[in-house]
Amino acid sequence: VHPVDLIRKKRDGGELSEGEIRFIVAGAAQQSIPEEQLAAWLMAAFLRGLTLKEEAALTAAMRYSGEVFDHAGLGRATVDKHSTGGVGDKTSFLVAPIAAAAGVAVPMISGRALGHTGGTLDKLESIPGYRTQLSLTEARRVIETCGATIIGQTKNLVPADRVLYDLRDRTGTVESPWLICASIMSKKLAAGLNGLVLDVKTGSGAFLKDPAASQFLAALMVETGESSGTRTAALLTSMDQPLGRFAGNWVEIWESVELLRNRRDPLSEDLRELSLVLAGWMIFLGQKAASPEDGRTIAEAVLADGSALDVFLRMVEAQGGNARLLDDPARFHTPKLRREFVADRSGYLNHVECEKVGWAVQRLGAGREQAGEPVAAHAGVQLHVKLGGRIEAGKPLCTMFTDDEARFAEPEQLLSAALTIGDEPEPAPPLIGDIITRENSAHLLRNQFHQSPLRP
Amino acid sequence: VHPVDLIRKKRDGGELSEGEIRFIVAGAAQQSIPEEQLAAWLMAAFLRGLTLKEEAALTAAMRYSGEVFDHAGLGRATVDKHSTGGVGDKTSFLVAPIAAAAGVAVPMISGRALGHTGGTLDKLESIPGYRTQLSLTEARRVIETCGATIIGQTKNLVPADRVLYDLRDRTGTVESPWLICASIMSKKLAAGLNGLVLDVKTGSGAFLKDPAASQFLAALMVETGESSGTRTAALLTSMDQPLGRFAGNWVEIWESVELLRNRRDPLSEDLRELSLVLAGWMIFLGQKAASPEDGRTIAEAVLADGSALDVFLRMVEAQGGNARLLDDPARFHTPKLRREFVADRSGYLNHVECEKVGWAVQRLGAGREQAGEPVAAHAGVQLHVKLGGRIEAGKPLCTMFTDDEARFAEPEQLLSAALTIGDEPEPAPPLIGDIITRENSAHLLRNQFHQSPLRP
Repeated sequence: VHPVDLIRKKRDGGELSEGEIRFIVAGAAQQSIPEEQLAAWLMAAFLRGLTLKEEAALTAAMRYSGEVFDHAGLGRATVDKHSTGGVGDKTSFLVAPIAAAAGVAVPMISGRALGHTGGTLDKLESIPGYRTQLSLTEARRVIETCGATIIGQTKNLVPADRVLYDLRDRTGTVESPWLICASIMSKKLAAGLNGLVLDVKTGSGAFLKDPAASQFLAALMVETGESSGTRTAALLTSMDQPLGRFAGNWVEIWESVELLRNRRDPLSEDLRELSLVLAGWMIFLGQKAASPEDGRTIAEAVLADGSALDVFLRMVEAQGGNARLLDDPARFHTPKLRREFVADRSGYLNHVECEKVGWAVQRLGAGREQAGEPVAAHAGVQLHVKLGGRIEAGKPLCTMFTDDEARFAEPEQLLSAALTIGDEPEPAPPLIGDIITRENSAHLLRNQFHQSPLRP
Repeated sequence: VHPVDLIRKKRDGGELSEGEIRFIVAGAAQQSIPEEQLAAWLMAAFLRGLTLKEEAALTAAMRYSGEVFDHAGLGRATVDKHSTGGVGDKTSFLVAPIAAAAGVAVPMISGRALGHTGGTLDKLESIPGYRTQLSLTEARRVIETCGATIIGQTKNLVPADRVLYDLRDRTGTVESPWLICASIMSKKLAAGLNGLVLDVKTGSGAFLKDPAASQFLAALMVETGESSGTRTAALLTSMDQPLGRFAGNWVEIWESVELLRNRRDPLSEDLRELSLVLAGWMIFLGQKAASPEDGRTIAEAVLADGSALDVFLRMVEAQGGNARLLDDPARFHTPKLRREFVADRSGYLNHVECEKVGWAVQRLGAGREQAGEPVAAHAGVQLHVKLGGRIEAGKPLCTMFTDDEARFAEPEQLLSAALTIGDEPEPAPPLIGDIITRENSAHLLRNQFHQSPLRP
C-alpha cells in the first residue's frame, strides 16, 4: 500500500477499506507516513467527507492505536458524558457523581480549556492537591471505591489522535464533522464505555454555530458509537449564554458544590436542569432506569439525599484533592481583584454573544494564550442576570475576578460587546433542543450524509 | 499572514489575493512554509480549483521565484513550443531549427523522460558530447549564433516549481489542470517568450486521456499566457499512436535528421505534418508570417532549402555535440540487441494503446525506473506499420532495440497488449483537432471554469 494511492482514492471520492484506513492511522501514530501526506489525506477527507463505514473504521483504528481502559470485572456498566465545549459548562461535576450514586461507573476522561471554552481539568486543579494525571490502574481504583473518576488523557491513550489533532490544527482541517467525530469518539470509546451521552452545544457560544452542522455531527457520533457497541445518545443544547451563574475555574467548582448540597439559585437553574437530564440519560444508558425520564427521577433522588455529594467529595479526596475546602467554597474564593461590570441602561438582557463572554473569562486568566501555560484558579466571571432578566442602569450585570489589574481591560470590552440590553423581555432559546438516538440518527444521516462541504 | 488562514480560505472556496498567492509561493521556494501546510493548500486547490486571477498570480509568482531568461537586445522575437508529453514525440528537433531558420529565436527549455513519455534532453544526450546543462549566459550565446538552443532547466529557474512539483508527486496533487498549468506556464514564461505554441496531446498515449480535460487545460494555459503578455496558442493533437516511425533516444534524433534532410518516409509523415503546422504557428506568433498558414509555407521553404538542417547541426556543435555523427545517423545506430515483434495474424493495425507502447520503449532502457538513473542511448522501438496500415501474419509489426537480453520480455508483453489487428481498415483519428487561441479560450473557460472536480 502506498500512501499516495490512498490520498488519490479519497481525493477522487472513493471509499477506503478498513485496512486502508488502519494503514493511515498506524502511519500517523508511528510517524511512518510523512506529515505532508497525512495533511493531503486530511484535506481530501475534509472536502470529500467520509462514508459511515470509513468513519467507523477511522474511529476504531484511532481507538486502538494505544492503550484502552478495560473495566472487566467491575460489575457495573460504564457510562460517560461528553460536551463539545461551552462557557460555564460544569455539568461534569454534577452528572459524574449523580450517575455514580445511581449505580453506574463513570470513567470520565476530560480536557483542558480550549479557545473560548473552559477546561474540566483546569477547573478541578483549582482544588488544591487534585491530581488529574492518573494512570489507568490508579483511575480504576478510584472508580472501584467512588464509582466515578475525572482524569486527563493518558499519554498512551489514542496516540493517533494526538498526532492527527496537532496536524489538523496546523493544516486548516479542524472543522470537519467527520474528523471531529473520529477524534471525540475514538477517545471516548477507548475509555471502554457501555453508554455515552453527548452534549452537543449550539448557539453563540458553541464551536459549531450552525444548528444543521451540530445536528449532523451529533447524528454521526451516535451512529459511530452505536456501530461499535456503545449505546449513544446526543442532546442538542443551548449555549446562547453561559451555563449557570459562574464561568471560570474555582467558581465553577463552587457553583457545582452548591447544587450538590441542594442549595438552589435562580441563576443556576439551567445548569441544574441540564445536569439532571444528562444524568438521567446516563442512568438510562447504564441500564439503571427504564427510560431517560426515570433516570432523571433517580438523579433527582440521589441529588436530594446527598449521595451524589458524597461521591464527589470522596472522588476529590481519592485523587489527592483537599475536600475540606468544599465545605465552604465561598471562603476559598480569594481572587486578588474583583471589578463589577455595570449596566449602562435599564431593561432586559436580551442577547448574549456567548463566545465573547468565554473569551473574557479566558483573558481574565482562566484560560491560556499558549499551550502549557498555568491558569489562574480564581479567575472568572459571575453573572448577576441571565437572558430575559431585568436589569437597572448602574447595577452590576456581572463581576470579574482576576489576579492582575492589567487583565481587566480586554474582558471589559468583550463583555460590553457581548451583552445587549433591550426594552422588552425576550424569551431565551430552549435549553434542550433535538435529542438524537439510534432511532433517528440513520435517518438524519441519510438526508445529509453525502453533503460534503463541496456539494451544496 | 498565517499559512493556515490561506489554507482555510481556499478550502472554503474563497479567492486568494495576489499577495496571498505570492506568500505561499515564496514560502515554498524559501521553505519557510512547512510541507504539511503546502500539501493541505495544494489539495484544497486541487479540489476547489483556482480562479483565473489566482491562476495568473500563481503562475507569475512561480515564474519570478528565481532567475529569468532575459533576451533584451537580441533583436528577434522569442518563441517556443511545449508538448504535454507523448511517445515518439520529436517535433522539438524539427520546429526549433525551422522557426530559427525563419528568423525567430527559440530558447527551448526541455525536460527528461517522465513515466511512459520520452525526454527531449535524454534524446539529445544520445548525441555524444551534447551538453544540456548550460547557464543562461551560455544559452544566450548559442541563440545569438544559431537562433535556437535546447537546454535543461537551470537550477535557479523557477525554484518554486521544483519544490511544489516534488511535493505534488508525493501528495497525490499532480493531475490538476490548475496546478499543471501553473507549473508549465511559469517555466515557459520564465524563459522570456514573446510567443508560445502548446501541443496538448489527447488520446491513448496522453497523460490526460479525457478530451474535455485536455481542452480545459489548453484554454487555461492560453488564457494564462495571454494575460501575461505572451501570445499563446494551443493545438489539441492525437497521441493515439507514436508520432513518426521511431520511439526511443538516438533513433528519434535519427528520424528527425532524416526529415531535416528532406528524406521522407510514409511512416514519418504524421511527424513531418505536425512539425510543419507547429513551426508555422511559431513563425506566426513570432510575427514573421501573417497567419499560421503563411508560417507553414515559410516552414516548408526553410526545410526544403536545408537552412533548418544547418541551424540544427550548428546548434548541436555549439552545445558540444558531435555533429559529424548526424551525417549518417543509421551507422551510429548500434544497439547490442534487436528483436522483431511479429504479427500473429494478417489484417489492419486498427488500435494502438499508445501508453503501453511508451512503457515498452522506456522498459527497453530509453527511460528510467528511478530519477537520476542513466538511460540507454540506443534503446527504442521502430514501427513498421501505423494505424490503418496493412500487415501480414509473420511479418514484423515493430523492432525492439536494447542492450540487455533481459529487457525484451516485458516490452514484448506490452506491445502484444498494445497493438490490435482487425479485419477491415479503420481510419486513424485526425492528427490535429481543436485549435485554441485567445479568440476562443475565454469562452471555453466560461463554460467550464468553475467546474472543480467536486462539482460535476
